[in-house]
Amino acid sequence: MSDSPNGSSGVIEELDEAECLRLISPGGVGRIAYTGRYGLTVLPVNYRMHEGTVVFRTAHDSATEQDLRTGIEHAEYKVAFEIDDFDPAVREGWSVLIQGAAHHVDSDEERSSVRQAGVQSWAPGERDRFMRILPDRLTGRRIRREATGAQG
Amino acid sequence: MSDSPNGSSGVIEELDEAECLRLISPGGVGRIAYTGRYGLTVLPVNYRMHEGTVVFRTAHDSATEQDLRTGIEHAEYKVAFEIDDFDPAVREGWSVLIQGAAHHVDSDEERSSVRQAGVQSWAPGERDRFMRILPDRLTGRRIRREATGAQG
Repeated sequence: MSDSPNGSSGVIEELDEAECLRLISPGGVGRIAYTGRYGLTVLPVNYRMHEGTVVFRTAHDSATEQDLRTGIEHAEYKVAFEIDDFDPAVREGWSVLIQGAAHHVDSDEERSSVRQAGVQSWAPGERDRFMRILPDRLTGRRIRREATGAQG
Repeated sequence: MSDSPNGSSGVIEELDEAECLRLISPGGVGRIAYTGRYGLTVLPVNYRMHEGTVVFRTAHDSATEQDLRTGIEHAEYKVAFEIDDFDPAVREGWSVLIQGAAHHVDSDEERSSVRQAGVQSWAPGERDRFMRILPDRLTGRRIRREATGAQG
């Protein structure tokens, strides 16, 4: 059968780390996932890459900042960060998943370093807390359509 | 000071459940977050809403399907589902977060019902397993720019 029940004729390609890093290097909107006071939470943030790490900003004492601070105090607390780009018209796109530990950027030296990344928050208020995620695991995949002679 | 340190002049608005449901009702790409064999995992899937629940498809015995099946066997296993839409040019957009229990659609009756949602997977292969998320908690927010007289 050439037709699958869901009409898909896509191909999935696993992406290596170099390709994942290339795709996410421009920064933009990613999604931070963590276990917080309301359970598993996923929120979009504007991010930049800096020296192989993800950098984003939160407001001091926001729910996210508090939850992450509480979690980070425990060893083995890991977060996930997801970035993707899909074109619904052709049902193609890619996604990258970063899994790793998060930490607050507290030292003056590190703060000065990550400021160079120039990450902006889109949300209002003084988002003066820099958060950083060190990837333990970096995986990605791309879905593309197979070229066929079919039209329409 | 009219300028915040990060140059943001956005406004955050919390969205009520009715507005969240309205925004996510067309379906499209959302991100399922769950705790799996590799820890906290976030993956994009094509979804549809059906009778107030999120419906998407996975391949039988895929890593996602196995992880979710293992998790679902435990009481209190919850997943999260995130949908968003941002316009980087104006730095406006919205996000919705669904938190709740997931289950496989196993009965013929439920299967027949969710098929009406017409959800397609964009990935290749026989994505013949329907998964469903029942929202316990539905939250969202919108970021928009404040109208100002400033130009440039």
